[in-house]
Parts: sequence; structure tokens; C-alpha cells
Amino acid sequence: MTFAAPLDPAAYRYVHRLRVRFAETDAMAVAHHASYLIYMEATRVEYLRAIGHGYDEVRAAGNDFPVIEVFVNYLRPLRFDELVEVHVVVATSGPATFQMGYLLTVDGQARATAVTVHAVTDSQGRPVRTPDWVRQLV
Amino acid sequence: MTFAAPLDPAAYRYVHRLRVRFAETDAMAVAHHASYLIYMEATRVEYLRAIGHGYDEVRAAGNDFPVIEVFVNYLRPLRFDELVEVHVVVATSGPATFQMGYLLTVDGQARATAVTVHAVTDSQGRPVRTPDWVRQLV
Amino acid sequence: MTFAAPLDPAAYRYVHRLRVRFAETDAMAVAHHASYLIYMEATRVEYLRAIGHGYDEVRAAGNDFPVIEVFVNYLRPLRFDELVEVHVVVATSGPATFQMGYLLTVDGQARATAVTVHAVTDSQGRPVRTPDWVRQLV
Amino acid sequence: MTFAAPLDPAAYRYVHRLRVRFAETDAMAVAHHASYLIYMEATRVEYLRAIGHGYDEVRAAGNDFPVIEVFVNYLRPLRFDELVEVHVVVATSGPATFQMGYLLTVDGQARATAVTVHAVTDSQGRPVRTPDWVRQLV
Repeated sequence: MTFAAPLDPAAYRYVHRLRVRFAETDAMAVAHHASYLIYMEATRVEYLRAIGHGYDEVRAAGNDFPVIEVFVNYLRPLRFDELVEVHVVVATSGPATFQMGYLLTVDGQARATAVTVHAVTDSQGRPVRTPDWVRQLV
Repeated sequence: MTFAAPLDPAAYRYVHRLRVRFAETDAMAVAHHASYLIYMEATRVEYLRAIGHGYDEVRAAGNDFPVIEVFVNYLRPLRFDELVEVHVVVATSGPATFQMGYLLTVDGQARATAVTVHAVTDSQGRPVRTPDWVRQLV
Repeated sequence: MTFAAPLDPAAYRYVHRLRVRFAETDAMAVAHHASYLIYMEATRVEYLRAIGHGYDEVRAAGNDFPVIEVFVNYLRPLRFDELVEVHVVVATSGPATFQMGYLLTVDGQARATAVTVHAVTDSQGRPVRTPDWVRQLV
Repeated sequence: MTFAAPLDPAAYRYVHRLRVRFAETDAMAVAHHASYLIYMEATRVEYLRAIGHGYDEVRAAGNDFPVIEVFVNYLRPLRFDELVEVHVVVATSGPATFQMGYLLTVDGQARATAVTVHAVTDSQGRPVRTPDWVRQLV
């Protein structure tokens, strides 16, 4: 993992808005730190749908993109019911992997940055070549 | 759903112990009410394993037991790190369904009772006859 | 719990739309049955906000509405990425409790009905009188 | 974050055993990648309890250890009902932070490694000095 997710929203290509649910908070009264991974995943799904590569199409094309590494830098807590903007970009791509960067903001204030590394596999989990449409998102 | 889960631990056949995880709490500083369903499911799995019908064997025998109804009566909150005893029993069985009852206690104090109704299906989700070993648990 | 949630969307007062997240599915490739409680909670929050009683205002007014009973009737599975409409209504109200009903649909097809019973408490968890604005929602 | 979690179980100081719950799996039939953070957290709690610094004592002493960074390297999937051993160690400590390393194994086979970075704060979230007992765990 070599990509560092930038703090500038302009560096991202898509933004998904969501509310922190009560079930996602913990006894510290903030979003549990595992919830961020779920927000990032929901954002990936919406981003791919928005560019015409919804999950069904990806699967029908015989591809899967399992997460093989994740890094999150928690800057300030997310509170219940806050409206979070999750910015996302495909940051780098290799022969059989790619990296995505994330910036979570509330009212323009950075709350977290994150990176996921994805393998590119077929439906049996075997590594395959990164599709051209993914490479072109970088 | 006709079975009412009793408050007497002696009415149950198996008990599974677990800790309330921090991730399962919410901003009220108690276990989120959806977590109880997960505790009940984990208890079902342990109970079936204990009586020689682990999940793999059930699936290998071509059966699945999806939850078709759930009822929970929350009596007192569960707090982070409390050691919960989840008591379970197969309460009733019908031709293609069965009911399970639950009592959640901490130090002998009742915190919740619950009932789940399960369909008996084959691996394609089609209703099949309740296995004899399930009927004999009642 | 005496209210039975109807199958007719016209019987409900508000609808919240959400997508089934991948993290909410399970190894049966459908939304885990505990996820429905989280969908219902998110819908309550949006409904109360829409009628001018957002969570912050409810808390500032010294009230809390903890779930004391829940019942769900699972009719057909929810699949990953399906767009779910969660219909909600305040069904009955008593001196210190009220009941809410839910209908979950996808493309107009019923997937589940549910009821939650809520206590009305102060911020210390002591029972208090159901606010008039809640009674008027029935 | 500078510590790389080793693959050798002998490099860790404590191990917590847990089962992958059905609710924690996803439609790929493996533990969802966010579940690993919850397993690591449950392991931290058990480790601190085992060395006489349970969560209540830590809080009573006026400390909190929020996660400020997390890194996970997913090596092989975790499947439903697998018995996971989560190995943990306090890897490094600084004036107001410390790092913990994790190795998740099943039957001795590495499934993931991970690192969490924790701030040391008082109960208001203000940075305070890392307690001596934490430093001595390194």
C-alpha cells in the first residue's frame, strides 16, 4: 500500500452521502471505527453503479474485487445522525490489483481518510487481469 | 407464533455464554437491540453443534432453517462486557416449521426473552418435512 | 403487542428508501435477519426528522423511546443492492408506550412486516407520559 | 504507523479464541472484512482483562484508548463457524499513543495480520501520558 489519501475533496471523483445510523454508534456515542469500512464499501458500490459498472454487471463479467488491505486514519469522530460525505477515487492500478482512496467529511471538515487495496479475481477467487475500465478510472 | 418464552432457566435445554462486545453497544451505552438476534443465532449454532447437528451436517443433509419470524421482549439492558447466558429450547415443531425460545440472563437476572420461528427448507429454499431429530428436541 | 402491521402501503404515513449494503448480507446471500431492525430504526429517525421531531429535539425535550418489544415477520428475502422502501406508522399509543408498524417492500412487493413497541422515558430511563405530538401521529 | 505485524505466533503475548458468527459473514460466504476489526477489539478487551486492566478499571483510572489508525492485511478468508485464534501484542508505545499488532490464525494457518494505533486520552478525549503499565507491555 503506497497511496496516501489526500485531504482535498477535489482529488476525488465521486461522493456518496449517508447518515450515521444509531446502530452504528457505540458506547462512546460516536460511530464505531468498524463502521467506516461499511461506509466505504457502500460508497464503492454507488460509485461503480454511477459509472455504469454496477455490482451485477461486474459479477456477470466474471469479476470480483475483494479487499486485501485496508488502512484508515481516524481524524475526528463521526456522531449519530451526522450527514457524511464519502469521497472516493481509484488511486492506482496494477496488473491484478488496484487501490482506492477515501475522504470522509462532514460540513467540509475532514473526519477520516482511508485506502483499500483490491485484488481482481474471477468468480472462483483466482487472480485475473485488471479490467481496462478500472485502469481508466485512475 | 404461539409460544411464550418462560422466565425460568430450568425450562431451557442448553446455555451459551458470551460477552457483550463494544462494537455491539450503541450511544445509549447498552447492547443495541439488534445485537440480541445475533446472540440468539450464535446460541442456536452452538446448541446444534452440542447435540451432534452442527451447521455443516445440517447443510450436508440438505436442510436449512431460515428465520421466518422473530419476537423479542427487552426487559433490562445489557451493558458492555457483561457475561450473558443465552438459554435456548426447541419449543414446538410442526410439519415444516419449528419454534425456539430464548432467555437471556446476567448473573441469574432476566434481561430478555425471545422466540424465533424457523422454516425447514432444502438447499433451494423449498419447504420440506421437519427432520425427526428436530421434533425430538421439543 | 396487539397491533398487526398491514400489507397495504396506504396504511402507513412515511416511507424511507435505502439500499441493502453488502456488509448486511450473510452467507445465504440475503440481508441478515438482524439488519431489518436497523432499517426500521433508520426509518424511525427519518420519519421523526421529517415531522419536525429529530432525535436531537427529542433528546433536548428530555425524552427517549427505547425499544421494549420487536416482532418481525419475514416474507421474502432482501437481496444485496435491492432498493427497499420501509413504510412506517405510529399504530397505537398508551400512557407511557407506543407501537409502530412497518412494511418493507421492493418494487411494491412485500418482503416483511414488523412492529416495535417503545417505552417513553426521561433521559434517566424513567417512564414518563407519552408526548401529545406522538399521540397525534396515530 | 511503523510496526509490521509478524506472522510468527510466538511474537504475540496473548491469544483470544472466537467463532465466526453467521451474522458476520457476507454474500461471498466469508467473514465480512469489517468483522476483523470487531474481533481485534474483543481480543484487546480480553487481553487487558487478563493482565488485570479490564475496561472498567481503565475507565475508572480516567483513561480511554480510542483507535486512531487501523491497518489490516487480509491473507485468506475466514469462513462461517471457523475457530479463529487472534494473537495480540503491544508493539510500540510513545508519549501519548501506542501500537498493537494482531495475527489471526485458524489451525495454525495465518488468515490476516493487523495493526491498530491508539491514542491515550482522558475521559474527555484530551491526550494524556501513556500509563506505565501500558509501556511495560511492549
